[in-house]
Amino acid sequence: MSEVAIPSKAKDRLNELSASDAARLIAGGDLSSEALVRDCLARIDAREATVRAWAFLDPELALRQARERDRTPARGALHGVPIGVKDVFDTADMPTQMGSPIYAGWRPPSDAACVALMRAAGAVVLGKTVTAEFAGMTPGDTRNPHDPSRTPGGSSSGSAAAVADFMVPLALGTQTGGSVLRPASFCGIVGYKPSFGRYNRSGLKMAAESLDTIGSLARSIEDVELMDAVLLGAPPRKAGPLCEPPRIGVCRTHLWETAKPETMAAVEDSAARLARARARVREVALPEEFAGLTGARDLVGSVERSRAIAYEWHHHCDRISERLRQSLELGSQTPHEEYAGALELAARCRERLARVFEDFDLLLAPCVPGEAPASLESTGDPRLQRLWTALHVPALTLPTHQGPGGLPVGIQLVAPMLGDFRLFDSARWVWEKLGGPR
Amino acid sequence: MSEVAIPSKAKDRLNELSASDAARLIAGGDLSSEALVRDCLARIDAREATVRAWAFLDPELALRQARERDRTPARGALHGVPIGVKDVFDTADMPTQMGSPIYAGWRPPSDAACVALMRAAGAVVLGKTVTAEFAGMTPGDTRNPHDPSRTPGGSSSGSAAAVADFMVPLALGTQTGGSVLRPASFCGIVGYKPSFGRYNRSGLKMAAESLDTIGSLARSIEDVELMDAVLLGAPPRKAGPLCEPPRIGVCRTHLWETAKPETMAAVEDSAARLARARARVREVALPEEFAGLTGARDLVGSVERSRAIAYEWHHHCDRISERLRQSLELGSQTPHEEYAGALELAARCRERLARVFEDFDLLLAPCVPGEAPASLESTGDPRLQRLWTALHVPALTLPTHQGPGGLPVGIQLVAPMLGDFRLFDSARWVWEKLGGPR
Repeated sequence: MSEVAIPSKAKDRLNELSASDAARLIAGGDLSSEALVRDCLARIDAREATVRAWAFLDPELALRQARERDRTPARGALHGVPIGVKDVFDTADMPTQMGSPIYAGWRPPSDAACVALMRAAGAVVLGKTVTAEFAGMTPGDTRNPHDPSRTPGGSSSGSAAAVADFMVPLALGTQTGGSVLRPASFCGIVGYKPSFGRYNRSGLKMAAESLDTIGSLARSIEDVELMDAVLLGAPPRKAGPLCEPPRIGVCRTHLWETAKPETMAAVEDSAARLARARARVREVALPEEFAGLTGARDLVGSVERSRAIAYEWHHHCDRISERLRQSLELGSQTPHEEYAGALELAARCRERLARVFEDFDLLLAPCVPGEAPASLESTGDPRLQRLWTALHVPALTLPTHQGPGGLPVGIQLVAPMLGDFRLFDSARWVWEKLGGPR
Repeated sequence: MSEVAIPSKAKDRLNELSASDAARLIAGGDLSSEALVRDCLARIDAREATVRAWAFLDPELALRQARERDRTPARGALHGVPIGVKDVFDTADMPTQMGSPIYAGWRPPSDAACVALMRAAGAVVLGKTVTAEFAGMTPGDTRNPHDPSRTPGGSSSGSAAAVADFMVPLALGTQTGGSVLRPASFCGIVGYKPSFGRYNRSGLKMAAESLDTIGSLARSIEDVELMDAVLLGAPPRKAGPLCEPPRIGVCRTHLWETAKPETMAAVEDSAARLARARARVREVALPEEFAGLTGARDLVGSVERSRAIAYEWHHHCDRISERLRQSLELGSQTPHEEYAGALELAARCRERLARVFEDFDLLLAPCVPGEAPASLESTGDPRLQRLWTALHVPALTLPTHQGPGGLPVGIQLVAPMLGDFRLFDSARWVWEKLGGPR
């Protein structure tokens, strides 16, 4: 098992192809980008009224890009493959509205770096996906494709829902707290937040600069790696099997008690089965000091956010949600010493975590409290993801389990800073052993 | 001496006031923002044909802001004070053209974070100052106010020239290599590049994300601190005298042989006089490994730049300068392992530098090779500033010396990471002892 299970009987619909398979078929002349995009658009047509994943979608514009790809020589590893782009990235040919009425209809003059790099590799930007307001905590309209009465998570809500619902194989997201891994886990797909700084943020609307990390949402690790290679400007990496099973630290974190039984079961079942698969699995506790990290992250987040959208706050306060306004007020009133202290705590914990990793290749941690809550008023509790975002380390969620409602519950895998390639290799090994969802 | 010497007989012109003095006079009701802005505009009117510091200036718009400030209660520490803004920061009411014909006349939808914070503290944005193309190495039109046949340095060319020429007391700049300290040194003013990450980059056009640092250009340390407090959202800090003279390391760096006699003399004269003023002055050599840092910085810079302006490169290549095109090509062709290796070297050197600072409060280093070169084709050699930018540490230049042509030559003071407040205190002590320029 190295791909999200497809609910229909067979891969008879092109929109169910992975990005990697689609790219291979297009490169081999066995598939046209136009046919692929048409099937994605048909899926959207059938499901969008329920899922509401797209902030902007112009079928004709998407098809024009696809036909242009079909007419021209292959540009790169994503030639002809449709992608979704979270609506906080600038796009020169589509509005960038950031989940805020302040930016209704706004058109940037250029593509964000990541969008330009994906297009340069041949990708077709299918459309812009719904984001919570300014990539924060106030939800957009998107529903969980597994159950539309439930949140898809956020803030990369549309990217996660669109990929999970087979509207598009691959999408860009961002994570400042838990905005990639939480929606990926709730929607039952793969979500990857790289080491801080791995992908270029030029042309991205900042939320909290020392935390904002661009990530990806996909249905396979191979597709995560495909996007990774494109955004690094690197040739696709030849990943071999691991020489030996990874050393896995089971890290329940100080937030373990906030997890529901399904999350506890997902972590414990994974640990047991990976141990049986000959991984060296041991419990690991983070130093006491780490308990302060989620609070420190929230403080840093609200201070930096109050600066990043100072203009909008001062000029369009009436069009900012109450929830965001409260966070901005809190942030702008925080004394500098407290902010500096929170940054120092995070820096100290990053150093200490590097030493924890001397004994482990990978940490296995809870990803979300449980399956997606039955509400559209909130995107869910981000604390279990925030901890790792504050630590800047790469993290990936796999859709290995299910909760009592039959909805997906992911596990979280965490690797040391800059250990992204190792994370991919280990995660592939883990997913092969676990399969899922169960 | 704690301020750049004013060439005219007395401070009879308001444009020669420091930002701090102007703010105090306005707050006390002894000066109107309008009168101050009028004198700045008169100075610009008299000198701009020679200096060419401004990329956009609308006198009526500036005066409207000033009159609005005069009509309304004080907003904050910069109430009514005009500032210059390098033309890579978004401004909602003025074009943001980034020294590139691609962005001729472009109007952003909002103010960059730093601009919004300065306006929220009452500042009047006088206009946008000339930047080298995308804050890189291809010069704009600006001349050195001390000798218009010479470069003002870059890429914050207009900000440095405007402040040096008494057109505005204070300006925003950015430094990715040497873009704040070099023009400040060439123009004979104070330039400050904070610890990496100190000021929020939301709404700034990125050049190279892991290096881009927002900084300030001013004629006094007090003004640098005033802007610092505003951008941190902190109340102005009460700086006392140092308890004892600082421990100063004279750090010639591996680039010492690239310095001209006037720079060598500036460093050696400063070291000798500070020792006489009872500072503990000792030579310090950086570890061998640091010699690779300038090359590593250039590699990181070109890779990140090729991503940050990928859109412009792919769509408007014909409107990008030859010099920048070459750097983009180089960057986009650099293998990922080389880029990752350069980042690792920088990270390692940062750790080692922290240990060097266990014995010193401050490093005294050469800032520029010598006085501003007699050319407008290049903004000068950035290597002596780049070294410290790559190390993320705060650095400040003071206009303490002159070269053989009578032009300014600054020294560079460097403090440990996050030691910005200590840098201000030490720099004030140093400038009191050295005075300048000599």
